[in-house]
Amino acid sequence: MQIESIYHQPYDQYAFSIDDKTYRLRIRTKKGDCTEIIFYFGDPFKFNDSGWQIESSLSMYLAFSTELFDYWEVNVIPPNKRMKYQFLLKNEQESLFYGEGGFSSNFTPNDQSNCFTLPFLHKNNLISPPSWVHDTIWYQIFPDRFASGNNKNNPINSTPWGSTLPTSSSYFGGDLEGVIQKIDYLKNLGISGIYLTPIFEANSNHKYNTINYFRIDPTFGDEKVLKTLIEKCHEKNIRVMLDAVFNHTSASFPPFQDALQNGKESAFFEWFHFFKDEQNNSAYETFSFVKEMPKLNTENKEVQNFLLEIGSYWIKEFNIDGWRLDVANEIDHYFWKLFHKKMKELKKDLFIVGEIWHHAMPWLRGDEFDSVMNYPLMKSLFAYFGYQSISKIQFQYSINDLIAQYPLPVIKALFNVLGSHDTPRILTQCNHNEKRVILLYVFLFTFFGTPCIYYGDEIGLQGGNDPECRSCMLWDKSQYNLSIFNSIKKLILIRKKYPVLENDGEFNWVQTDQPDIVMYERKNNQYHFFIIINNSSEKQSVQVPINLRKKRITNVWNGEQFATESDSIGVDLLDTDFLILQIEDTDSFT
Amino acid sequence: MQIESIYHQPYDQYAFSIDDKTYRLRIRTKKGDCTEIIFYFGDPFKFNDSGWQIESSLSMYLAFSTELFDYWEVNVIPPNKRMKYQFLLKNEQESLFYGEGGFSSNFTPNDQSNCFTLPFLHKNNLISPPSWVHDTIWYQIFPDRFASGNNKNNPINSTPWGSTLPTSSSYFGGDLEGVIQKIDYLKNLGISGIYLTPIFEANSNHKYNTINYFRIDPTFGDEKVLKTLIEKCHEKNIRVMLDAVFNHTSASFPPFQDALQNGKESAFFEWFHFFKDEQNNSAYETFSFVKEMPKLNTENKEVQNFLLEIGSYWIKEFNIDGWRLDVANEIDHYFWKLFHKKMKELKKDLFIVGEIWHHAMPWLRGDEFDSVMNYPLMKSLFAYFGYQSISKIQFQYSINDLIAQYPLPVIKALFNVLGSHDTPRILTQCNHNEKRVILLYVFLFTFFGTPCIYYGDEIGLQGGNDPECRSCMLWDKSQYNLSIFNSIKKLILIRKKYPVLENDGEFNWVQTDQPDIVMYERKNNQYHFFIIINNSSEKQSVQVPINLRKKRITNVWNGEQFATESDSIGVDLLDTDFLILQIEDTDSFT
Ligand SMILES: [Ca+2]
Ligand SMILES: [Ca+2]
Repeated sequence: MQIESIYHQPYDQYAFSIDDKTYRLRIRTKKGDCTEIIFYFGDPFKFNDSGWQIESSLSMYLAFSTELFDYWEVNVIPPNKRMKYQFLLKNEQESLFYGEGGFSSNFTPNDQSNCFTLPFLHKNNLISPPSWVHDTIWYQIFPDRFASGNNKNNPINSTPWGSTLPTSSSYFGGDLEGVIQKIDYLKNLGISGIYLTPIFEANSNHKYNTINYFRIDPTFGDEKVLKTLIEKCHEKNIRVMLDAVFNHTSASFPPFQDALQNGKESAFFEWFHFFKDEQNNSAYETFSFVKEMPKLNTENKEVQNFLLEIGSYWIKEFNIDGWRLDVANEIDHYFWKLFHKKMKELKKDLFIVGEIWHHAMPWLRGDEFDSVMNYPLMKSLFAYFGYQSISKIQFQYSINDLIAQYPLPVIKALFNVLGSHDTPRILTQCNHNEKRVILLYVFLFTFFGTPCIYYGDEIGLQGGNDPECRSCMLWDKSQYNLSIFNSIKKLILIRKKYPVLENDGEFNWVQTDQPDIVMYERKNNQYHFFIIINNSSEKQSVQVPINLRKKRITNVWNGEQFATESDSIGVDLLDTDFLILQIEDTDSFT
Repeated sequence: MQIESIYHQPYDQYAFSIDDKTYRLRIRTKKGDCTEIIFYFGDPFKFNDSGWQIESSLSMYLAFSTELFDYWEVNVIPPNKRMKYQFLLKNEQESLFYGEGGFSSNFTPNDQSNCFTLPFLHKNNLISPPSWVHDTIWYQIFPDRFASGNNKNNPINSTPWGSTLPTSSSYFGGDLEGVIQKIDYLKNLGISGIYLTPIFEANSNHKYNTINYFRIDPTFGDEKVLKTLIEKCHEKNIRVMLDAVFNHTSASFPPFQDALQNGKESAFFEWFHFFKDEQNNSAYETFSFVKEMPKLNTENKEVQNFLLEIGSYWIKEFNIDGWRLDVANEIDHYFWKLFHKKMKELKKDLFIVGEIWHHAMPWLRGDEFDSVMNYPLMKSLFAYFGYQSISKIQFQYSINDLIAQYPLPVIKALFNVLGSHDTPRILTQCNHNEKRVILLYVFLFTFFGTPCIYYGDEIGLQGGNDPECRSCMLWDKSQYNLSIFNSIKKLILIRKKYPVLENDGEFNWVQTDQPDIVMYERKNNQYHFFIIINNSSEKQSVQVPINLRKKRITNVWNGEQFATESDSIGVDLLDTDFLILQIEDTDSFT
């Protein structure tokens, strides 16, 4: 056994609670190295005359594999919410106990000295994002470009709507009234959450350089309009999430101007990070070397209170449902813990999403963010379905690597995107192949997480990196890519009808030999689905590898039913095609 | 290369800050597998025409090895407190880049897509235990057994001091006045911190079942006596740490009695964990199935406030210097974060030590505890120096495993014990061999951490597990084991004289072929020590393996100097003996 590959730790993604009674334990082994793993556990305080006693053992199951590793899992409900435990790893050659004391074939199940410890399962240590995000479909709006409901508030020098491609400095006059007017459009599409990029006063079209955190940018509307927007959304069961830019401000933010002009005399000098540069000139920390974006000193108590006040104000006064946190990784953990505590006290089911592009476990332990923007998923999906630059197995490994990275409650709340104002448009990335775009959405809408559509992607807007990916929304239906639009709408309907396709079901790959046929199941006690995707440019026939006798099989995409009087079925897929098969017992119809 | 063995994560023990500018990075590889590792890093936002750019590379050094792994380290000061980085791992056969994107020989240093990210070094995310603990020598006092300064307050039915061995229910009348009277004794021994096991009102001799958290147990004294004790200690630069039992109370704790009697009608019903057992009888969660110790519901806000009030009261009113937290692992992280924040706001340099016997990384990230009681170190030290049950190399691996477990700032503040009220006496564990006891202290006092002596161990008190290990302190000097006593006193003097032996120096093993000769160095820019321990029962001669020409070598234990006019020296050690050699450049004397 390659023992150096074996990994477990009694916290984070290797030991987490999936409800207030149940721990899920995970252990990593070299791929193919173990044939069986037994999980031994007992109460830390149960002794008899011969010493400490295990109470039970469970067989772990091989949950998934990556290129290098197998991941084994088991769910455990210890009688008193606590346990000591160790693993017995087996293959044909050897059996090894593994625990906090190391590896040895000499240990026994009752060796407390070799055990890991989970001391007590507390409800308030559960990772518990608000449950409503599990069945929410998000829509990201870049307000200057989505819809103008009022042309009187347009910025001076606005460009007529859609008349040109955007530049980094252009304005088109989109606003919150425009969003209000399009609520029915969004509702019709199936959207249940709107994420608005920043709407507070700022002198840029993107508004990621805030000048006044307590005021709606006048070109977007005012407080009354936002209140109306949120009320109307709530009437239609649509949640609203705002974007908080706390890492930095605009250089025009009055406290920064005060600090810049008055130096150490300023009451705001400590709000920023001023320093002397190599030439002994006064300088200050910024976001990404952008002088217009001075970095806030979030270690300063006044800054902390100021930012907490902003966070609170828009919840208390406007009843927003979520905060998306810009450049969240560059702000300290101490502040985010304060923020989490205060915001959740104000609104228990507030959704907090950090913008973090890399691995984010330290922010996702349940006391900072509920979620992060899931760019790693996007990267894998594009590589496979978009560019076909990786093989099926590489794709599956990359998805499994993602699942291995986080506790399951985190995976179920990840903010899954196929694009944003910071990335090229999906149709552009797919080289204008709309069928590839649809496959991307098929996966997005049949996988864990809380998926988000970037405005306009649903109608086939195109464009490369910023500023191209921020062009004006089209409202002339004749210009829509209806194939994409109707597919997304139908996929959303299907996802909402079957929570098993959202976060209320297991996700398991189903292996086939065909290199570009991806097959996976979603299932729970009630429902069972097979999703089959043909990622090749060839028509393919696929045998569905389960015993289908006495089953009814329906492709919920088009209602087509398959014969049930055989042990298996063969299905045909066109190139770049897919099936969403529901498997039902015919018994349940009699 | 065995890539499955390679491990890094951009947080916890693999990436931490050692000051407000410097990151220490660590990577694990299979032992002997790599010959060189290059660390590439750059600012996340530095791009040129061809894309992202690394700024620098550094050679990592092989810091230490365990039975299975090599650990490589490097210190990095990124110019803007942030970096993206990856590793280039090399051996004779291959070169592999490793980063968040995985392993590949196809990556280049400039592949941002493969990088790990450290987004920004914030001071308030530093792990920063109070600096005074780095040179503190602790002394743990079990008050009923240390000294009685006032026999009028003795519990009824007290047993005359030292007249018998203790039972689990005996009282001997020790008290706080007794501690006050012995401050000079402790000062003379070299103690600079006292840790008192619980002193609040409780109906047991150990007082780990609190009845009133705001009152000193009357058999120990009163608030005035504690104030005097702390003031007198502070005058002599001795810190005082109290023991907080927040996991559970006494069954006689009035709110518990109220809840027990009035059930759901009680205002305190939610303060505990009541439930119906299998026979439908009313039951409640306890500590370790002990009915006398009902577990507090620390998720309840009133309980949280009550406990925070206790924590605050003894700081504000009595100016205590530390809280040792009983059964700390069975209380939720949420509460400990509240506790940390509140207590540090009240007293910035308060020391917070959790009682956790197992791996404790999740509590030691800088926002819960500064330290834990280091029983794993005790276990290794006893196995080698006490029982000789492991080999030298196994011992070294176990120490290296410990170092690998935590960030260095944690290692430097670990509460290192060779015994407590919960373990057999050190001399008993060493089978009455006082020379072995001394070797244990030699290591303790020349290693990282903040060491603690359990009262009486310094004079050779004996006894097995509780209650035997809680016998009365002897105050008749003729009964002391003077060999142990004088050795400890001298070791403390040496440790205090040379901070390099405390936490102000590196720790490196020095390899020798002699199986029971342990050699390690402590060094910094100014000082350089070799500690050589003969753990065998035979006299041994040892060659000190460095070039000693132009050096002066002094055994600071006895002042003996060694010849300097040769390339190396041979030193003789008796059985179970040691040398603490200071190496000085003779140049510095001319
Ligand atoms: Ca407008
Ligand atoms: Ca007394």
